[in-house]
Order: sequence, then structure tokens, then C-alpha cells
Amino acid sequence: MPKSREIHLVSRPIGAPAVENFALVEREVGDAADGEVLVQNLLMSVDPAMRPRLTAGQALDEAMMGGALGRVVQSKTEAFAVGDLVSNRLGFREYFTSEGKGLTKLTPDPDLPLTVHMHALGGTGFTAYGGLLHIGQLKDGEQVFVSTAAGAVGSVAAQIAKIKGCYVVGSTGDDGKAAWLRDEVGLDAVINYKTQPIKKALEEATPKGLDVYFDNVGGEHLEAALRRMNTLGRIPVCGFISGYNSGHSNVGNLSNIIYSRVMLRGFVAPDFMHLYADFQRDMAGWLKAGKVKYQETIREGIAAAPQALIGLMAGQNAGKMLVRLAS
Amino acid sequence: MPKSREIHLVSRPIGAPAVENFALVEREVGDAADGEVLVQNLLMSVDPAMRPRLTAGQALDEAMMGGALGRVVQSKTEAFAVGDLVSNRLGFREYFTSEGKGLTKLTPDPDLPLTVHMHALGGTGFTAYGGLLHIGQLKDGEQVFVSTAAGAVGSVAAQIAKIKGCYVVGSTGDDGKAAWLRDEVGLDAVINYKTQPIKKALEEATPKGLDVYFDNVGGEHLEAALRRMNTLGRIPVCGFISGYNSGHSNVGNLSNIIYSRVMLRGFVAPDFMHLYADFQRDMAGWLKAGKVKYQETIREGIAAAPQALIGLMAGQNAGKMLVRLAS
Repeated sequence: MPKSREIHLVSRPIGAPAVENFALVEREVGDAADGEVLVQNLLMSVDPAMRPRLTAGQALDEAMMGGALGRVVQSKTEAFAVGDLVSNRLGFREYFTSEGKGLTKLTPDPDLPLTVHMHALGGTGFTAYGGLLHIGQLKDGEQVFVSTAAGAVGSVAAQIAKIKGCYVVGSTGDDGKAAWLRDEVGLDAVINYKTQPIKKALEEATPKGLDVYFDNVGGEHLEAALRRMNTLGRIPVCGFISGYNSGHSNVGNLSNIIYSRVMLRGFVAPDFMHLYADFQRDMAGWLKAGKVKYQETIREGIAAAPQALIGLMAGQNAGKMLVRLAS
Repeated sequence: MPKSREIHLVSRPIGAPAVENFALVEREVGDAADGEVLVQNLLMSVDPAMRPRLTAGQALDEAMMGGALGRVVQSKTEAFAVGDLVSNRLGFREYFTSEGKGLTKLTPDPDLPLTVHMHALGGTGFTAYGGLLHIGQLKDGEQVFVSTAAGAVGSVAAQIAKIKGCYVVGSTGDDGKAAWLRDEVGLDAVINYKTQPIKKALEEATPKGLDVYFDNVGGEHLEAALRRMNTLGRIPVCGFISGYNSGHSNVGNLSNIIYSRVMLRGFVAPDFMHLYADFQRDMAGWLKAGKVKYQETIREGIAAAPQALIGLMAGQNAGKMLVRLAS
């Protein structure tokens, strides 16, 4: 009967989350009962979208929810065998028992590192793929802007646009990330929004305007993009990180969507699950061909999970932020 | 050789437009030359969308542009005969000559008043029809909110939604208009946004949330609707009248479009011209059956045009605002 350590939310952050909003709690996890499996999590995901759930959605004094990849260590069901890898939504804990609901067996690609199944070849990559191609209806050769382009979702979106022959501008808040986007990823223009005024910089970087803005940020980034949208442009809205800590994110020039007949559409990956097989085939090929590059920031051990989330919100990650819970 | 009086924009309004921004100018119009027609305008349209053009787009010291319906009074081309009625974009003037470009022959429906071709059966009605059914993808029986629901576009949008079996809430800024919407048009709920707090009133009026918000207003109306949108809801954005005088219109809760996966899309009628024949057939039938009711506010004479536009922006119209230039 293993002991599992897990992260509870114990108070709701006002503004940026802080370590005192979280607690590390140890509890006994029962062995697998009939029909159940016992899963040990190996890796867990830390995502910007977790921030709004700290304000509303995530219960207090319970283990937090989040994407994770685990290994079956006991099985009393024919559906799973010991050793099976299972994607699950029960991150922020080391062990859990389950009747199998919400577990998806993962067959890792032998030619790729296991961790890419947690980002480029997993949920964040799929969010970028469907957001850009399905929600954003990207066409080859268009003018594209991606905010937080060095992030887990943004970096994949920006590179898919490059693969599709587009002119791609990315923003980031860090000179090191900007250099990676320019020199490794090969974006056409990169804006450091912490050192350059975003509206002026975006205007200069987009002489042919914008057909698609992949928005992870909202706020000033969205205002800057709205000024540059071409007729019948599209803005898939993946995140509003600029407003996550404050709870609001003002946009003052939304009326521009009328004159240019622009579509904004919020989305989550389950909106385009019918594309998942296409995504896996395309993305595995791009990763193996080196056409999609990625960065990872991996923290070690469950106790590091709160700081990983706090650090993510402060931009301390390069690429996907993960926590390794076991190996 | 007739004299034509026309309205010039002589200075750009700061905030609400005022009479001193306009001038009535008389000039000679030549007779029709070979290949030309001379048109006398009978009716001209006054629309909220004209306001942004006063800030940028409409040249100073020239006759203003706007929808109009005229009659051919001289013709030196086989394309038009004297007496033909022609829709045109050359409102704000009594006469003009033309080679025919931009003129569309109108065959009025003998069972309907000529003026309905200027609103419910014309551009404003078509804007409502395509905005709701094509851009908004309205489905039978959905939950719908229409802002400025007593206006020329809003009143048609609200009634099409009723014809489609929807639950329809409308907003207006006047008790008389509210009574018309409730008692004559038969909306399910009506909000006077000048006497009721829009967010609370909309919440109370939409127990099943909103699937479609037909937005003519932006600003606080849009914020109120964003709080009520159901999953995969749609917001066709037809106008942002709340920001037309000030030039901006803040929206603070746009991030809601992510959680509910909402689409906002700005549009103009030319985006769905392929629906025009369907629209004319449907709308003529609805008008004759009394299923679409309308109001008109008709000012007399070209000199009244500036005050008609000023009054429209102040809500002094009931339904479509027109100016009759001749009969």
C-alpha cells in the first residue's frame, strides 16, 4: 500500500500565485481493488490554463487536477496490464487508483523521447495544430502572428505555420527565447514584448498585415493584432494569459473586427478530436524530420510542482514545463 | 440642367456629430451625356455605420455617401429607361449623373410599400438575415439576444429569430420602443438598458443562457452577453454603436470566449451575397404575412439629412431612419 504525496490548493491566489497557496500532503493510497488499477505518475504537465482554475474551478484542500503520464503498477482488470503507460488528468499526485475511466493507453513512439508525448506530440501540440489549421483555417503562405511563441503551444503553432509556407512573426518576453525563435526555429520576425512596444513592433514586422493571429495572451497583444488584421482574418483564441492573474484583460479596439470582418474564436482541443489521428501522423513525421523543434523545462519531484506553476506564470520556463515524478 | 442640393461633411465631429459639421451646398448637375443617366433620388438611408466614416473615410467638402433609391429622369443609355428605379450609394444629394456603375435596377414589390425596399427588404434586412443565419449559424429553438432590437437591423434580426422558434431577448433605450417590442413584435423579454442594469437584467432574462448574441452595440452589452454565452455560442458582430462617438469601446471579459468556446465574427452584407435571392423570397413572404413588423422614421427634404443622422445617433428614430428627397 504505497504512500502518495500530492499537491493541494489551500487558498486562492490574489494576483500571481505564491507557494503559500499550496500544500504538499501525504496520504495512503489503497492497493488496486477488483476492476481497478494502481497507477504511478511519471511526468506531469504544468500549463498556463491552470491559473484560472485556481481562482474558480479547482476545489480547495483536494489534490489538484492536471495532465499526467503514469505507469500501471498493479492491475485487477483485463483492460490494463502492469507496465502499461496511461495518459490521465490526475497530475499533482504520485499514485492513484482508478477503474480506468479517463485513462488512455499510450504506445510511445520508439524513435522519439517519451517526454514529447507530454507536449509537441501530446495535448499542447494538438491544441496548436487544431487551433491553427481547424479553428484558424490557416492557408499556405499566409501572414501569421503567434504570441508567446517560445511557449509549449506557441512554439508548435509557429512552426506549423512555417511548415505551411507562411510568413511568421512571434512574440516572447525574453531575449534568450527570442534568439531561439530567430536562430533555431527560423521565424521571420521576433518581438520581445518586454523591451519593445508591441503595437509599433508588430506594425513594423507585418508589412502585409495579418491573416491569422494565434492568441495565447489577449490584452495588449490582441489590441496590437486587431490593428493589423487583413480582411476576413481569423484569430483562434487559445489563452488569455495577460488576464489570468488579474482576472480581467481589457481590449479597447474590438470594433476593428467589423471593418476587417475578422473572426475570433475561443477553443479547447476537444472541439476538434476528429483530427487527432491526422495530428499524430503529421507531428510524429515533423518531429523526426527535425521540422518541429522544442524546448523542455523539467523540474524534479512532486514537491517542486507549485514552484513550477508559479515559475511558468512568470515566464521562467523554456518551452514545455514538466515535473518528473518518477522514472 | 437641374440644380442639386447636397450635404457635405465640412469638419470631423469630436464625440457626437453636430449640425456645424455639415453644410448644405447647391450645385449645377449637367444633363445626361451620351452613355449616362440623370437620376433624381427619392429616398435616402441614414445608418449608424455612417458615424465611423465621419471620423475617417468620408472626405471633407464633398457630398457624403450613403444608400439611396432614385428614379431615372434622363437616359442616354440603353441600359436604363426614364422612370426606372435604381438603388445607389449616392445618398445625401438630390440629383446625380452616372454611367450606370453602382446602380442596381429595382423592381418594387407591388404588394408592399416602396420604403420597405430601403430597410426590411433592403440592405438592413439583408444584414440581419445573413448576420443571424449565415454568420451566427442560428438553429431553430435557440436562445437569442439582440441589442438595439427596435432598430432597423435589430428589429429584423429579432423577428427572424422568433420565426425560427427561438427564445428572444431584445434591448432598447426607450420605454416606447420596449413596449413595441413586447406588445407588437412579441419578444420573450425586453430590457431598457437606460433604466435597467444590463448585466443583471440580461442574467434574469436568460435562464437558459445564450446561444447567439446579435451585437449592434459592443461595450457593456457585449460584456453582459459574454457572461451568458453557452458552449459553442456565436456572436455575429454587426455594429459597435457604443464606441462610434468615442472611438473606443472597452470589453473586459473577452477571455470568456475561451471557456465557452465562443465565436465572435465581424461582418458586412457583401460577405454573404450568395444568399440574396433566398433573403428576398423569404423576407417578402414574411412581410406580406405580417410576420416581420417594422417602424420607419421619415424626415422630409435634403436639408433635414444632417439632423436625421444626429438624431439617429441619439436614438430619436423608431425603426429605420429615412429622408425623403422627392416623391
